[in-house]
Amino acid sequence: MPETLDIAVVGATGLVGEALVELLEERDFPVANLYLLASGESAGKSIGFRGRNIRVGKLDDFDFAKVRLAFLSVGAEAAADCAARASEAGCSVIDLSGAALNNAAALLAQACVNGDAIETLQLPALIAAPAAPAAEVAEVLAALRGVLELRQVNVAACLSASALGREGVQELARQTAELLNARPLEPRLVDRQFAFNMLAQLGGVDEQGHSAVERRIAAELARLFPELEHGLSVTCSVAPVFFGDALMLTIKTAAPVSLPDVSAALEAADGIELVEDDYPTVIGDAQGQDTVYVGRLRTGLTDSCELNLWIASDNVRKGAALNAVNLGELLIKHYL
Amino acid sequence: MPETLDIAVVGATGLVGEALVELLEERDFPVANLYLLASGESAGKSIGFRGRNIRVGKLDDFDFAKVRLAFLSVGAEAAADCAARASEAGCSVIDLSGAALNNAAALLAQACVNGDAIETLQLPALIAAPAAPAAEVAEVLAALRGVLELRQVNVAACLSASALGREGVQELARQTAELLNARPLEPRLVDRQFAFNMLAQLGGVDEQGHSAVERRIAAELARLFPELEHGLSVTCSVAPVFFGDALMLTIKTAAPVSLPDVSAALEAADGIELVEDDYPTVIGDAQGQDTVYVGRLRTGLTDSCELNLWIASDNVRKGAALNAVNLGELLIKHYL
Repeated sequence: MPETLDIAVVGATGLVGEALVELLEERDFPVANLYLLASGESAGKSIGFRGRNIRVGKLDDFDFAKVRLAFLSVGAEAAADCAARASEAGCSVIDLSGAALNNAAALLAQACVNGDAIETLQLPALIAAPAAPAAEVAEVLAALRGVLELRQVNVAACLSASALGREGVQELARQTAELLNARPLEPRLVDRQFAFNMLAQLGGVDEQGHSAVERRIAAELARLFPELEHGLSVTCSVAPVFFGDALMLTIKTAAPVSLPDVSAALEAADGIELVEDDYPTVIGDAQGQDTVYVGRLRTGLTDSCELNLWIASDNVRKGAALNAVNLGELLIKHYL
Repeated sequence: MPETLDIAVVGATGLVGEALVELLEERDFPVANLYLLASGESAGKSIGFRGRNIRVGKLDDFDFAKVRLAFLSVGAEAAADCAARASEAGCSVIDLSGAALNNAAALLAQACVNGDAIETLQLPALIAAPAAPAAEVAEVLAALRGVLELRQVNVAACLSASALGREGVQELARQTAELLNARPLEPRLVDRQFAFNMLAQLGGVDEQGHSAVERRIAAELARLFPELEHGLSVTCSVAPVFFGDALMLTIKTAAPVSLPDVSAALEAADGIELVEDDYPTVIGDAQGQDTVYVGRLRTGLTDSCELNLWIASDNVRKGAALNAVNLGELLIKHYL
């Protein structure tokens, strides 16, 4: 049996791609050769890994037969294409794009919810990782499931500029600087003022009024928590914040909520940091951390079968990249 | 019958106090003499009204017998004290502080919900105006009540720096400038980084974990909409935005929601601007306007008896000051 395997990170120059590379190094992921790939424009850059620089190759030219596992952090269309190429070449895939959700051959997985299912997968495997907010909510719901019978979950999310990628972060920085310097504002990436303004949605909405990320989060949570199939509400706004997800959850339960039980369950969960004396925020707490921060635990104002809480999490590192790497850690037991 | 009456604005130097003075002028409120009052530190400043500057007097020394109506935009403790002094002096009060909510003699009122009740009040009257987010939600619920049977309302609010008053706005500006100039951040008003960060709550929370503004909003909505007494959830976070409320609402109804009926009801409501093709935000839409902006109308993702929507509103002008002036316009029919 080999002790390491060859791996690809597709979309390596994006925010999540960079975090994936960092985490593979930090967590001593058993990488033999690491292939970093990106679309034409970004190929040619270099990214550091284990003390040396790896040149980012062109995704179009890559032969997936060279690797056993590929992380896909690109747009849904490109990811679906990569997943097909990888599968034909015998390479397992962990897809962060959401594209695999509609592929019957894919397993939607989150280590703390259904990590066991990964052990029984046929190779090459196609694993779908949830969107960052869904992964963060799932981490909390998985811990609560032992002490609460979940009936409904309402997620009101304040996503950040990073949900729009590196360009979103740059747009917020540019707009903020222009405003503080009293220069005329020229919105580019977003069609209105983003600095010091709350946006009602991320991207466009469909005919029913839901955005793609809202549908994705609801579909993923319903898949991971079938008891919530008819009880999910999701709204994703975007705050003028560079990084981090801030989520307001209202959870309806079958029986009155015991806060001591809820606290104990969250305290005991590995990927969760419960803050009870104060409240956590992304800056100063969650950013750069490998845990989902939970605070503002309280029962409903008018309903004892209701739990309210707040989640602050590093969407890029914890919500997206670490979650995918955790899935990879479970999957590679097949290979090693 | 007189055609004008003497009026006081208590807390005239605050953000809402200034907006009150502006609106009294803009709306040709039948003011004879306008007395502007503030606590010791702010007394002595001047504020323009109808082309002349009015000196702000000391609240402690003021004799409320001089006026027929006082708007109170100060802290709850000071407001309760003023209301008692005004009442003894025969002066009616419109209290924006929330203090009057616990006074059995007070009427909680919103023009579009129970404005009629003001006509039957005994003088001097004590009228409580809802908190800005409650007033904004109430405006929308009042319009929806004709077409929906309301069961539950979940309010996830992103308040702005202005909810912390003028000092909140200054703190956000100072922190933002320090960060953009790469100077070390020294939080003052808020005990952590506020710029580019989402705060989980406004002020402290009680033993049950609810903040004062959350309790106030829920209590006010339950008073105005008794059918929601057992169906209110409220979370108030604070976004790094200078002005404006951004509210995410999930409304549960007794029967499936008809979006055309909902749209028609909102379109027909005086104080509401419905945006259907795009979405409204505070900057560029609601700021400085006298209407509550509603967008992102949609039925639930998994529940046809659910309506989701987004509210963007100028909390200072529309949510607080205009709402109070509207109550004043109804009340002064008693005097004129």
